Amino acid sequence: MKVILDLDTGIDDTLALVYALASEELEVIGVTGTYGNVLMETGTRNDLAILELFGHKDVPVFAGEPHAITKDSFEVLDISAFIHGRNGIGEALIPEPEGTVRDQGAVDFLIDAVRQYGEDLVIVATGPMTNLAAAIQRDATFADNATIVIMGGALTVPGNVSPWAEANINQDPEAADLVFRSGAKVTMIGLDVTLQTLLTTAETAQWQQLGTVGGDFLAEATDYYIKAYETTAPHLGGCGLHDPLAVAVAVDPSLVTCLDINMKVDCEGETRGRTIGDEEKLNDPKKSVKVAVGVDVERFLKEFMSRITKAAAQTAPRG
Amino acid sequence: MKVILDLDTGIDDTLALVYALASEELEVIGVTGTYGNVLMETGTRNDLAILELFGHKDVPVFAGEPHAITKDSFEVLDISAFIHGRNGIGEALIPEPEGTVRDQGAVDFLIDAVRQYGEDLVIVATGPMTNLAAAIQRDATFADNATIVIMGGALTVPGNVSPWAEANINQDPEAADLVFRSGAKVTMIGLDVTLQTLLTTAETAQWQQLGTVGGDFLAEATDYYIKAYETTAPHLGGCGLHDPLAVAVAVDPSLVTCLDINMKVDCEGETRGRTIGDEEKLNDPKKSVKVAVGVDVERFLKEFMSRITKAAAQTAPRG
Repeated sequence: MKVILDLDTGIDDTLALVYALASEELEVIGVTGTYGNVLMETGTRNDLAILELFGHKDVPVFAGEPHAITKDSFEVLDISAFIHGRNGIGEALIPEPEGTVRDQGAVDFLIDAVRQYGEDLVIVATGPMTNLAAAIQRDATFADNATIVIMGGALTVPGNVSPWAEANINQDPEAADLVFRSGAKVTMIGLDVTLQTLLTTAETAQWQQLGTVGGDFLAEATDYYIKAYETTAPHLGGCGLHDPLAVAVAVDPSLVTCLDINMKVDCEGETRGRTIGDEEKLNDPKKSVKVAVGVDVERFLKEFMSRITKAAAQTAPRG
Repeated sequence: MKVILDLDTGIDDTLALVYALASEELEVIGVTGTYGNVLMETGTRNDLAILELFGHKDVPVFAGEPHAITKDSFEVLDISAFIHGRNGIGEALIPEPEGTVRDQGAVDFLIDAVRQYGEDLVIVATGPMTNLAAAIQRDATFADNATIVIMGGALTVPGNVSPWAEANINQDPEAADLVFRSGAKVTMIGLDVTLQTLLTTAETAQWQQLGTVGGDFLAEATDYYIKAYETTAPHLGGCGLHDPLAVAVAVDPSLVTCLDINMKVDCEGETRGRTIGDEEKLNDPKKSVKVAVGVDVERFLKEFMSRITKAAAQTAPRG
């Protein structure tokens, strides 16, 4: 299965990227950059640097939309900087990338890839859905042929930026609503399941013990993330593995149980940014979205640790 | 299985009551009155009159709490009168009941019944959950021993009195929150499923054709309800069988597919009245609530028409 990752890298985006690189079931044909946890430019810089650190400088990176549909600029929220660090990777220092983003833009790359690969391609989007919405608007065939797994939203639990809105959806509710209502095959990996898949420093310590630059980097960045969670969500006892769970589901959909439902995003009123079933399509027998409402936590965590640790072990020795 | 119906009767409460009376699997040991669609006193008057019309004057009726926990009175909302008629039964006229409510109050009856019958009893509550909350507060053993099916709430779809609140929950969010968090075994039959189970005048015409007082009454009341739905929810193409579905699930839980989840109700802030998963108990392996998210529409409608029509056929001839 070919995969494109649409990332706002981001610590858990980093883990998602490494999970994908470490998965033999997937061929990462490109990374497209979006904004959110960081500026789009910071995210693609991180993507390039991480790809090189993990021995995949061949994977192309594409610059995407830098801000939401209804806005003309984007600034990183204080809470995002608190959770991911100002550089997006928990203030960890890794070598500047040698490569640069491609000349082709992310949206055109997504369109070309869906035209070329159809059902053999899955797009895993872990930030605001602005690039996907742009692709749907630019190419009338995109929605019908794209297979998408998103990390975003919250259906059966409260949001994380407000009692009703999850951070990725909140950045661009119009884009997410457009994607949900487009009829595209979307699997939504939201807070319903990602806050069940928790990582602690007991796990990151294993990466540190590898004695590799990759292990050191992932441990340092993830520890920063876990520490932020101790402040923002102390009841959890760990950090949520949001973005890597979306990649894991692209590899193996049986990790989650899903509700088939037609979804929308509230764009008006008090609950702007809420992901909820579309009541006007409740009785439409055709359902375009699968919302994950259950997850095999134990099996996912085993796959996660096995794959990430393997990838980190293969990087250069510390020194 | 013994059953107590906690009703704010109400047209769909009427259908729920008749469904229960017509179900050989159930023994209706009492009806407790709550407010909501109508004043509590109007509801118990309707309960008594309907029980007598359908030949069940032996079933006792108990007066419950007349208003929400945080209020000191209750007035019927205009929208409730529009949907159910000022008399609660679509302005249909049926004989005044000969019987009266019992001296014992609804809350004490509920407590005594749960103590006496335990797991052999199910309480089906189709109005605000004020009586149930009072029973939980008055008797420390109630929550552990009660089995409850409620019609109320909306988890995966918007509400019906606001984009986030369903009418029964909205009447007394504190009561519903107390019941959800009490640990009592609750099955939530919310708008997620009840707006999938629709009735039209094609069905009510069958009751009219019976030539009985029961058939005429149910057809007239339900047609009033269907007409209101043409205004309030024209996209549905029928009226939602909210309350009878809750009784049907008490008879046969396999009619719905449920999500096991710990629930809460937002009592503060913009989304007051919203039913949502309790994020602080997301990773508690013990789940006290089952939220119906899927329903076998065809099988339920068949059971519904078969049972209601049978009960209506057995009433006195028109004339």
